[in-house]
Formats: sequence, C-alpha cells, structure tokens
Amino acid sequence: MNELKLKELLKQFFLEDIGERDVTSETIFSPMDEGRAIFVAKEDGMIAGVSIIEIGYKLLHSSIACQLYKRDGERVKKGEPIAVVSGPMIPLLSGERVILNLLQRMSGIATLTNQAVRALNSNHTRICDTRKTTPGLRMLEKYAVTCGGGYNHRFGLYDGVMIKDNHIAFCGSIKKAVERVRSQLGHMVKIEVETETKQQVIEAVEAGADIIMFDNRTPEEIREFVQLVPSSIITEVSGGITLENIAQYRDTGVDYISLGMLTHSAKALDISLNVQ
Amino acid sequence: MNELKLKELLKQFFLEDIGERDVTSETIFSPMDEGRAIFVAKEDGMIAGVSIIEIGYKLLHSSIACQLYKRDGERVKKGEPIAVVSGPMIPLLSGERVILNLLQRMSGIATLTNQAVRALNSNHTRICDTRKTTPGLRMLEKYAVTCGGGYNHRFGLYDGVMIKDNHIAFCGSIKKAVERVRSQLGHMVKIEVETETKQQVIEAVEAGADIIMFDNRTPEEIREFVQLVPSSIITEVSGGITLENIAQYRDTGVDYISLGMLTHSAKALDISLNVQ
Amino acid sequence: MNELKLKELLKQFFLEDIGERDVTSETIFSPMDEGRAIFVAKEDGMIAGVSIIEIGYKLLHSSIACQLYKRDGERVKKGEPIAVVSGPMIPLLSGERVILNLLQRMSGIATLTNQAVRALNSNHTRICDTRKTTPGLRMLEKYAVTCGGGYNHRFGLYDGVMIKDNHIAFCGSIKKAVERVRSQLGHMVKIEVETETKQQVIEAVEAGADIIMFDNRTPEEIREFVQLVPSSIITEVSGGITLENIAQYRDTGVDYISLGMLTHSAKALDISLNVQ
Amino acid sequence: MNELKLKELLKQFFLEDIGERDVTSETIFSPMDEGRAIFVAKEDGMIAGVSIIEIGYKLLHSSIACQLYKRDGERVKKGEPIAVVSGPMIPLLSGERVILNLLQRMSGIATLTNQAVRALNSNHTRICDTRKTTPGLRMLEKYAVTCGGGYNHRFGLYDGVMIKDNHIAFCGSIKKAVERVRSQLGHMVKIEVETETKQQVIEAVEAGADIIMFDNRTPEEIREFVQLVPSSIITEVSGGITLENIAQYRDTGVDYISLGMLTHSAKALDISLNVQ
Amino acid sequence: MNELKLKELLKQFFLEDIGERDVTSETIFSPMDEGRAIFVAKEDGMIAGVSIIEIGYKLLHSSIACQLYKRDGERVKKGEPIAVVSGPMIPLLSGERVILNLLQRMSGIATLTNQAVRALNSNHTRICDTRKTTPGLRMLEKYAVTCGGGYNHRFGLYDGVMIKDNHIAFCGSIKKAVERVRSQLGHMVKIEVETETKQQVIEAVEAGADIIMFDNRTPEEIREFVQLVPSSIITEVSGGITLENIAQYRDTGVDYISLGMLTHSAKALDISLNVQ
Amino acid sequence: MNELKLKELLKQFFLEDIGERDVTSETIFSPMDEGRAIFVAKEDGMIAGVSIIEIGYKLLHSSIACQLYKRDGERVKKGEPIAVVSGPMIPLLSGERVILNLLQRMSGIATLTNQAVRALNSNHTRICDTRKTTPGLRMLEKYAVTCGGGYNHRFGLYDGVMIKDNHIAFCGSIKKAVERVRSQLGHMVKIEVETETKQQVIEAVEAGADIIMFDNRTPEEIREFVQLVPSSIITEVSGGITLENIAQYRDTGVDYISLGMLTHSAKALDISLNVQ
Repeated sequence: MNELKLKELLKQFFLEDIGERDVTSETIFSPMDEGRAIFVAKEDGMIAGVSIIEIGYKLLHSSIACQLYKRDGERVKKGEPIAVVSGPMIPLLSGERVILNLLQRMSGIATLTNQAVRALNSNHTRICDTRKTTPGLRMLEKYAVTCGGGYNHRFGLYDGVMIKDNHIAFCGSIKKAVERVRSQLGHMVKIEVETETKQQVIEAVEAGADIIMFDNRTPEEIREFVQLVPSSIITEVSGGITLENIAQYRDTGVDYISLGMLTHSAKALDISLNVQ
Repeated sequence: MNELKLKELLKQFFLEDIGERDVTSETIFSPMDEGRAIFVAKEDGMIAGVSIIEIGYKLLHSSIACQLYKRDGERVKKGEPIAVVSGPMIPLLSGERVILNLLQRMSGIATLTNQAVRALNSNHTRICDTRKTTPGLRMLEKYAVTCGGGYNHRFGLYDGVMIKDNHIAFCGSIKKAVERVRSQLGHMVKIEVETETKQQVIEAVEAGADIIMFDNRTPEEIREFVQLVPSSIITEVSGGITLENIAQYRDTGVDYISLGMLTHSAKALDISLNVQ
Repeated sequence: MNELKLKELLKQFFLEDIGERDVTSETIFSPMDEGRAIFVAKEDGMIAGVSIIEIGYKLLHSSIACQLYKRDGERVKKGEPIAVVSGPMIPLLSGERVILNLLQRMSGIATLTNQAVRALNSNHTRICDTRKTTPGLRMLEKYAVTCGGGYNHRFGLYDGVMIKDNHIAFCGSIKKAVERVRSQLGHMVKIEVETETKQQVIEAVEAGADIIMFDNRTPEEIREFVQLVPSSIITEVSGGITLENIAQYRDTGVDYISLGMLTHSAKALDISLNVQ
Repeated sequence: MNELKLKELLKQFFLEDIGERDVTSETIFSPMDEGRAIFVAKEDGMIAGVSIIEIGYKLLHSSIACQLYKRDGERVKKGEPIAVVSGPMIPLLSGERVILNLLQRMSGIATLTNQAVRALNSNHTRICDTRKTTPGLRMLEKYAVTCGGGYNHRFGLYDGVMIKDNHIAFCGSIKKAVERVRSQLGHMVKIEVETETKQQVIEAVEAGADIIMFDNRTPEEIREFVQLVPSSIITEVSGGITLENIAQYRDTGVDYISLGMLTHSAKALDISLNVQ
Repeated sequence: MNELKLKELLKQFFLEDIGERDVTSETIFSPMDEGRAIFVAKEDGMIAGVSIIEIGYKLLHSSIACQLYKRDGERVKKGEPIAVVSGPMIPLLSGERVILNLLQRMSGIATLTNQAVRALNSNHTRICDTRKTTPGLRMLEKYAVTCGGGYNHRFGLYDGVMIKDNHIAFCGSIKKAVERVRSQLGHMVKIEVETETKQQVIEAVEAGADIIMFDNRTPEEIREFVQLVPSSIITEVSGGITLENIAQYRDTGVDYISLGMLTHSAKALDISLNVQ
Repeated sequence: MNELKLKELLKQFFLEDIGERDVTSETIFSPMDEGRAIFVAKEDGMIAGVSIIEIGYKLLHSSIACQLYKRDGERVKKGEPIAVVSGPMIPLLSGERVILNLLQRMSGIATLTNQAVRALNSNHTRICDTRKTTPGLRMLEKYAVTCGGGYNHRFGLYDGVMIKDNHIAFCGSIKKAVERVRSQLGHMVKIEVETETKQQVIEAVEAGADIIMFDNRTPEEIREFVQLVPSSIITEVSGGITLENIAQYRDTGVDYISLGMLTHSAKALDISLNVQ
C-alpha cells in the first residue's frame, strides 16, 4: 500500500465522522485526560490493516502510542488482543469508529479470502479478486485480499485489458478485437479475453491472448477448456463459485479463480476497542 | 442526499477506477460509436440509488440519456429492468463498474433493511442504522437504509451525543456525565445514554437523557426497562439482534432497534448492465 | 474543534495569502535568520483561537516554538501579551497575517458574545449563535461563540430541523409539518418550529416540537408565550435583539436567545505581532 | 473575479452548510415542488456579489432561473428587490443561507467602502483595502471593495513588496533593504516602504521606492511628508483613520488611504429571501 | 484520456494562471464584448491535444464555441489553422496561455516522437516512452506520445514490474527476483528485467521474464541478445539512443526502443492564438 | 518558494507515480531493508531544487536522512555528487523517479538560464522568464530561473498588467488602454505595454506605462527605441532571441530580455540516483 495515499484516505474518513467536533468526548474529557485501550477480536478470523491503527491515530494526535500484537495475514482467535493504544482520551475515542470500520472490513475480506483459499486447497490454482470493490476503498480492499492469501486482478480500467462479449461482437471476432487492442497498446499491458465456449477458447488462443477467462463454466467444462490452452497462456475462471462449491474446481487445472464476493459481500470481522 | 456532495464522490470514484484511461474501451471503440444498455436485477430485492445512474453518467458524458424504471425504495424482481441508458459506448462501459458497485451495495443495504423491517413487523418500533458504515460512503449508505424503510441514527460524532460506559466511569455517574454535556452544548443536540442495568436506566431517566439505549439486553429485560422510562424519553436497543431473532423484540415496546449489520454486513444485490 | 479539519483550513488560508512565495521576507531574510515575536492585545476583550498560533506556525515550519500566555475564553487587557513565538524569521513573518486575521476575528466574536452574556446577566437564559457565519469559517466562529460564554445552535442544515413559515404554509399546518418531518427522520434530530403568534405557539406545543422559537417578538409577548409551553419543550427567541435592549429579555423566562450579529457583525479585536 | 475559482469556493461553502442533506426541506418538500423567491434589501446600502445568486443556484440545480434587478456597485433602498429566483423548492431553500451570508457580507463591505469614499470626498485620493480580509474570502472581499468605489492593495504576500520596520532594522537602512529586494526581484513587482518620520520618507525617496507609506501619521504630518515625495512615487497613508475623521485627510495630497476596517469590521448588510 | 481527469487538471492549471482575476482583460473588456480567435501553427510539426481547446474553454465559459481543423496525430504546416474559437473576449484571452502551453508541449512531444518513428523507419520495432514525464502531466504527455506514433511503457510504479540491478543484487539472482515478484503478484502485471550482459539475458529468459530490457547496449550487442530470447518474450532497448543514431537500431530485431527524451527534452511546438 | 505549497505539489506527484503501490519494490524488499543512495550529476550544469530531495523523501518516510552537497544555483560537473540519502529501501526507490524528474527539469532550466546570462554577459540587462511554463509547475520553474541567475516576469494574469495589440485595438489607443486599466486598478500593479513601432513607444511613454516591451525587434531598433524611453520607465525586449544571437542585444541598453525558451524548451539536466 502507498502510505501517502493511505494518509489522505484516512484524513477524508476522519473528517466524515468527526465533522466539526466530537460532541461527546470533547465535552466529557479535557485535552489533558489520558487513557489506554485494547483492540480485541470478538470472533475468530484473519487480520488485515493493523497499520491503520498506528497511522490513523498518529494523524489525530502525535502523542498517541501504539503497540501491535498481530501482523497482517495472521490468524486471530476470539478474545485475543490485536493492539494497544495509549494517549489523550479525546482522540483515542474520536478515532475509534473509523479505525474499527476499516479494520473490521479489511479483516472480514482477509478472513473470507482465506476461507476460500483453504476450501479450494490447491497447490496450483490461485484465488483472486475483481473490480467489485467498494468505491473509494479499492487500495485497502485489494490489499486485504492479499493478506488472506489471495491475489489481485487488475486494479482498474487502466492497468489491464479485459475483452468481453460486447467488444468481441463489435469487432466481429476475438482475433480482430485482440489485434485492435495490441496495435494500440504497449508491451506492459496484459490482455485478457472472456470466453464461454470451446470455440471461443480456441479463437482466443489463436489470437494470442495473455489470459483466457472462462465465464460461468462448470468444473467439467473448465477441465476441458484448460486442455486447449498452452501453458504460456494463463487461464482464469469466474462466475457461480461459492465457498460451498469451490472445492469442485480444485483439479480443473485452471490458474486463477476470481471471486467478486471477496470484496462485495464479505461480512465485517467483529473487533472492539476496550478502554481500560 | 446532497447532490453536490454526491457529484464530488462520484468524480472521486470514477477517477479511482478509470485512472488515466480505459485501456479496453478506448482502444476497441471510437468516440463516435453509440449504444444502449439496460440495468437488470439478477435477484429479488429493493432498489436504492437509481439517481446515481443518471448523475454518474452525466458526469462522464453530457450526451448520455437515461430512463429510470424503478424508484428508490421500490421492490424489484429477478429479471426486471431498472434503467436504460444510451449514448457513446466508451463512457457507457467506462462508468459501468463504479455505478454497479454503488447501486448493488446500496440496494443490498435497502434489501437487508427491508427484510429487518418486515421480520420485525411492528407498528411502533423502528429499525435504525449505526455509524458502522463504510468510510467515505456514509451519506449513501444511510440514505439506502431509509429507502429500505429504516431510520437514521446520528450521522457522525458531530450531530448527537452518545454517553457510553467510559464516559460514565470517568464522570462518576450518569447524572454527572449528562450534566457535564448539557452545560456545554446547545439545545439542538440530543443526548443518548447507553445502559445495561435497571439501575442505570433509572439513573438515565433522572439525569434527563433524551434517549436511553439498552445495550445487549434480552427481549424480557427490554420489556421491563421500557416500563421504567416515561414516554417523553425515547428508548433504543442495540446488540445481538439478527434477522432470525428480531421478531422477539416486536412487543417489547422499545422505540428503536439499531442494527450495525445493515451497513457493515449487507450483501450486494446482484444487478447487471446488459449492452444491446 | 476537530484539529484535523483546522489544519486543512489553515493550509488553505496560508496558500491564499502566501501564494508562490513571500516576496518581501524571502528576499530580505535568509532561511538561517531567527527571531522572536509577541502577540499583544491592542484593546480590551476576550481571547479565542490561541491554538491557531501554535498549530498554524507548526504547519509553516516545524522548528517554530510557541508559548501561550492566555487560554481561550480568558479576558485580555490592552497591552497584555497573548503568546510568544520564536524561530526562523521567514515563516514567522509569512504566517503573521493569516494567524492575526483569524485570531482577531475569533476574539472579536468571543468579545461580542461575552458582552451579550453580561448585558443579559441571566441565570436561566442562554445566548446562542445562528447559521449567519462566514462561509468556510463556521467551525471556528461557532467555537469562538462558546469561548465567549455562548452556546451553539445547529451547525448546518444537516443536524437540526427548523420549520419556518414557508414549510408550514406548504404543509397546511404546524402539526402536519412536524408529522411529516418526524415520520421520516430518526430520533437523534431535534425539531424546532418558528412561531409568531400565540395560536402558533399552542399549535407547536400540540405538534410536539422539541424547540419553539418566537420570531421577532417583544419581551412582553415572549413572557406570555413562554407560559404556554411546558418545561419539557425548549423556547428560543430571535430577531431585533441588540446589546442595548437585551437586558429587557432577562426575565422573560425564555431558554435561548439567538443572535445573528455574534458572527455576521462582530468587529475584529485589535491584536498585533511585535517582532523583537 | 475568476469565475472558476468562485465556483470552487461556492461548492465548498454549500458542502459546509448542507452536509449530507437538508433535513428540513428534503422532508417537507418533494423534488417536484417548485417555487419563487425574492431577494430584498432590508436596509439601505450598496450591493456587491449579485452574480453569486445566479452561479450559486446553478451549482445546486441546473433548472433554477434567476433574474437580477441590481448590478454590483448599485445603491439599494430598504425594501427594494435585488433578484428573483424560481425553480425547485428544495435547492431554493437549501442554498439560501450561504448565498445570503456572502451577499450580505460583500454588500456590507461595499457599503462601508462607499461611505468612506463619500466621507473622504476627494478627486485625488483613493481609498484602498489591506490584507486584513477573512481567510478564504479574499477574492470576494477585495472585489466588494471595488464595487464600493475603493481600490485593491496587494492581494497577498506574493504580488507586492512591503518593507516594514523589522525589515529595515535587519538590513540597517531603507536603502539597503530596497536594494536587497530589487537585486532579487524582477520588474513586475512594486516595492512599498513603510515610514514614520520625515527622515525615513527622505530615505525612501532616495532608495527609489515605488510607493511610500506613512504609518499612523496625522493629517498635518502627511501634508508635510507628501511634499517630500516626487510625483512619480505614490504615497499612501494607513492607521488611525475612521469614517469620522477621514475628511481631515482630504487635502493632504496623499494618493491612497488604506483601511483595514473595510474588510475586518464591516457589518453585514441586511438582506432577506422572501419565498412567495 | 480520461476526460473527467482532464477537466480536473485544467481547472487546477487555470487557477494557477488566472488566480483571483485577469487584471488586464477584466479591466479592458466588459463581459459583453465578444470576439473570435484562431490557433495557428508557427512551425511544421504534429498536433496533439486539440480537445483541450474545446474542453478548456468550455470550463471557462459555457458560451464559447470551438471549431477544430486538425485532429490529434495530424501533421500541420507553418501557418495552418488548428482551431477557431469565438465568444466573450475575457475568457478567450484569460484561457489562452494555459491552453497554448499544453497544446505546444503536447504537440512538441508528438512531433519529436514522430521524428523518432520516421528516423527508425521499422516495420517491426516500436518506439515507446518512459516514466521521465513532467510530474502532474503524465496522462497528457503519454497520450501525446501515442499521437506521434509511439507506444506507452508503464504509466507508473503501480502497473508494471521493472526489475533493475539493485533488485537483482538484493535477491541474489534474476531468477530469485522474478520468483519473489511472481509469488506475490497476480496475473495482470507484467514483469520486465533490465539486463546488461549476455549471461543476464540468458538468466532472464530462464527466469520467465515477460519483457527483457537491454540497458545501454550497442546495436551489435542488441542483435546478438535478441537471438537469445524466444519470440514469446518481448525485448526492449534503452539508453544512449538519439534521433541521429536511432536508424542503427533498425535491423536489430528488438521489439521496443524506449526514449526518455520524448517527454523530458521535447521542445514546445510553436503555436499562437491570433485574435481577429 | 512556499514550502507548504511545495509539499502539496509533491504529494500530488507521488500519488501520480506510485498509485496504489510500487509493485516492484514492495515485493522485492521488506519494510525493514535499508539502504543508501547518491544523486550524481551525469553532465555539467547548474543545480536547482535540491530541497525537493529532502522535503520529498520526508513526505514518503519520516526516517529517511538526507545530506546535501550542492546548493541551488551552484555549478556541478559530470560525476559530482549532489546529495546522499539513506533509510528504508522501499520509499528510497519509490520516490526516485518523481524527485529526479523535478530535479532534472529544474536544473535544466537553471542551466539554460545561466547559459543565456553568460552569453549575454551584460552588467545592465537582465534575463527574465515568461508565463510559458509547464502548467502546474510554475512556482518550481520560475524559482529555477532565479537559481540560474535570471529574474521572474509576472507569475500569472493576476499580478501584472500586459497590454497587447488586441487590447490597444479595442480601446482605440495605448493611452486609452492604459487609462482604462489605471482607473480601475490599485497602486501595487504594474502596467506593461507591448509595442512594435517607434510611434507606439512614444505613445506608451506618454501614456505613463511602467514597462514598455519591444516585441520582436532587431538589436538596432531596440537601441533606437530605448533612447525614446525615460529612465524611470523599464524597457523589455521579447521574441526571436536565442543563445546564439543574444550577445547582439548586449549593448542595446534594454533593461530586460524575456525568454520563453527558458521554461518551455529547456532540456532536462541528466542526473541519476545510484543505490549503494
């Protein structure tokens, strides 16, 4: 993660929550009152985003100290401490909700990703994310996927080509679509083609796609499609895959399984801040 | 929703996704190519955020036309159209993901809120949200809660006092905490006190709280606590309430049930954009 | 005040005044030249905003030291020192005007508020501000009001309902207007109703307003109106009140007097920075 | 005024006041409800900033129409209409306060400036402003000064040199200070020197200052000092000048009188928006 | 180019140049005065960025009309018209410099790129840019390279891996460096390895690099190195290549020649705006 | 330079280059790995912008140390060290390109300016810049000109009047144009008039211009024109002047020569960062 960007995001989020002032803590406590608080897991899961605790609190007050007990990507059990923070009470409490909201969401994503990785249990096939992230949080959510053992698909429309049915229909064929793109783009951009049939897979191979995606295919179809693709081309499958059925894709030989749910439907991991 | 703020958010989100350019659509299509696409529900639910389709696309290109078939808070069946957009292909496709991500998330929140409202099925008790929203999206998510039939709790630390255990412990008593706050704040700010015991509820009533919250209490306790509170003070319950058990709170007489899950754990409603 | 927001405001204000460079100080002094300067009151008044001296200068140069002699809300006599700053001459002088402009304005507001509080001289009735603040400075000006012994009315259109004549006319009655609002808003938002006649006051009481405002009424009318309102509802008066006539409102029993002049027509308190 | 900058400022100010939503108007009115409202002067004065009505409302809603009855710099009598706006009620009311706050402040500055110009009543001497403006509003306030018949001094530290006592003391003499500055700056920057004594005026003339300012001098001293300065050098006086005593400076022959009060202590001109 | 991003950049650039107001045009012309002006090439070259004329002027004033005579990537002769704009004089003149500065710079880059492409005169080898762009203008400058017939290398540190000598030294070998990267990154990111010797090229091939760059090699070395690389891996050469010697690289068989000079040392193409 | 503005620019530039993360360095190095690197000149020239090394790296990581060996405006020989930086490898490498791009561009401008100053070799005539700077970088580029021994012309449209042929044509005469401007602007703004003929120069003198510019005139014409202008008015020449012919202007007696090429066509000075 780009820490400079993280700081800009955190500023924006604190401004959203605190606004002109924290009407409760600023009237109850004086700027001199100090305290100590512990971030504790309230359910089992995998942690992501602990640096937000330290960087976030430093933005709010330079004298808040922070000790981390868990690293990103580490498992946590219900009741285990994640970090201890100490310093002036007002910023400790004013910053709590934003930090928890981010930490819980990121840890929820890491936890779900890790469940998918373990349910798949493959030495070959990797789990990856999609662009179905929360607007404004893509950097944080894609990072959380890697904490859970997953990999990142493209970050946006700018860093990878994805040729879909509309593009193919418009150009007339996969070959023409790939050619059109290659003739205009440099060598640092990968080209992925979405396919649904055996015929399309063959076309995509001939067109020289860098990655071929099998859209909404059964494990059997995927196994068959993978055979059609030389090892120098990466394969990916997407659509209809859940924690329940992911194990069926284990021996298909596909390189990547992309899962939109990792970011659009992860439940927050329950974490609380206990003031002492 | 403040439309000016919505536009600023949408700009930020489009910049995140599109970056310097859409490497696929800008190489496949020319700026002259036009098309038409339909937003279609892929599962049953409740819609929230349709104005984002129109406002979002207008930001990307002034000549995109938009026709809406559903209003916010309306139910949608799998397969039903939500909106039709037409205009230049490049912005139609470049804007798709951001708009879908927001529409799906907001509709997911509205759908979950509405499930809670219907499961509770009360003429008296209202469902409300919390500050456990996605950082950066609070305005959108709180709006989605109202589309689903829920109500908004405070928007941030700035527009409502919430006196919790730490504040009470620090001040010595609920009474002292409420007095401390009242002596400093004007008459437009409401004061809510979190309570866990009968004794605390009685204290909060005597302290003149505007709202008394029962934290993590059983339906039986709540029924008892509500009796202790005069009708001029609003009651709220929070903690441990799910879609499964919410009906048990129907006859407790409590005024508000606040649910963090509405915003931190809603699943996105599946919606797609079909280009024609 | 939210210190993070204060820093963002100060950055914006320094950029407005300094632009690309301070053509005078950057050519006269070298970055090595150091100095010391005192903020001194040039007339009697009440101080507000001293933290801006320290936070502002730290933004301009990390090695500027600052010692404060006055706290916000403290009285100051002509000639008394407020703070001493020392460090590199260039930022000391480049930051002077912005810091003085804010300090003088905020102290002017605190001074005027305090004059109103003392002229009113009531144990019961509080002075409060309005939304007639300088655009962009609301947080600072509302804070200055509290330094002078006043209270804050709502901060914006987002944190409190104010039902005025247009709203009432449109809905048909005060009762319908209040109902319409209550049916849509949660329990953390207070509802104030503006009234001009005895009849309207009675209606507002029946409608269950949280606050009833008497718009442009004489002390006699107010005394009479207050009798119509149960103690659980807060009363406020606004319009036509000046430093000269405010004492006439002392025994009306009204809870709040709101004064637009506190922020829209306060004179700056004269303060200077003397370099030594 | 730079209209692009004006729009950015207005956006920021509307976001400050409206926040996430206007809780009153958005619940009372539907987006379909339309209305008409008149800006009316509630006291005599001079108008400045009418374009803010049109530009501001256009930012809030593209279909609000605006008709202006007064131009900037025009006199207005109590009760006279300034502009009529019509369109959707929600933005009409949500934008009211910000637009009035700016219009009242700017018109207050124009009115005070014009009072000064008329009290001075000189064919030769011009009134000008200072950098004692409200942080964030300099462009608007300096523009308002010109509407009232005044002139602008430098806009910031970047567009004009002002050599004061500290600079002179540090360099050893006015001559050395001016030389130091001239040796580093190009030909588009004017150099003003603050003087307090006859001796200093003579030095400043010899040093080749572009403008010589007489700081806190009596009309008699000024008349004397002006004689020492060749007509190619501009003279300015500052300090201790009020509406009451400004006429005494009429025949001093000085070129400019700068008045901090124009911007730091102007009272807002009372203007209201009457919905019809 | 992302038009939304382009607009944000243009706003920032106009604010830099115009500041609070255009002191010349705003005093000479009234807002009613209209005019017409032609953008004319003052030397031969290739045009890039014409959309900036239209989008830029629309930002300044909605009623400025614009007619374009040249498309991006088109050659222009000295004296040829590029575009005609008409509308209010004040924005026509206030926007002139920013638009010319961008258009001249972008056209200068396109012209230089095109000179390189023609000097190379190869059916196989492509010219590409680097990250040696002007900070803040990368999107515009990389777009200008494509207008001149060149291709884009990676846009930033985020969309492509470049393994250099430091990385290799730290990891112990090219193989270990590539493995380390591949084990952490998804399938959409390409990996380029910088090499200087035959041995390193062989290692990079074995490590499975996507692109192999020959750093500062002679045409002879490159010809030899290219033979070592299978056609599925892309080759690139960088360093020491000028307009004068680029033809010597024509038959080396390398896929890409990257040239920092395209963006860091292009001369602006002379273009003027003639008001009629 | 305004350091606060410099920091805001640097943040924006780092975000442009690093985006969400540095895919190379963040995967090769751990946050614990530290290193040391030297900025070295790869050709002879003049340095400008060294403070960017320190301020830029501090923004990326607070623990990076920086030692500077050269000051702005100092000559550097090929191979000489400019600065040494040490600290964590990831930010050392992630920040390299942005810092080099700025340092090279600014040093290129300083070098070219200094070449012009030395080619002119005049005790009287000064070299100055224009507004033909890179949009977004004006502060940096104009500062670089001063490092090379040049002077700054106006910074934007806001801090100096430039009356050109269009303005004159519109007003009817130079005299009317100057009067029109003077009647509206204060005493801190200088007025420059562009002239092409002897007649125009005489008119400009009579109109009381502060600066008279001779547009595209030969050295002979300039010598003649200068004679027509009293010494209290500054003269400037612009257009058609190159490093090759600038010496011909040495004895013309003109005060300033403005050169657009200093900023629009300077070649970057080659500087590299060598990691040790």
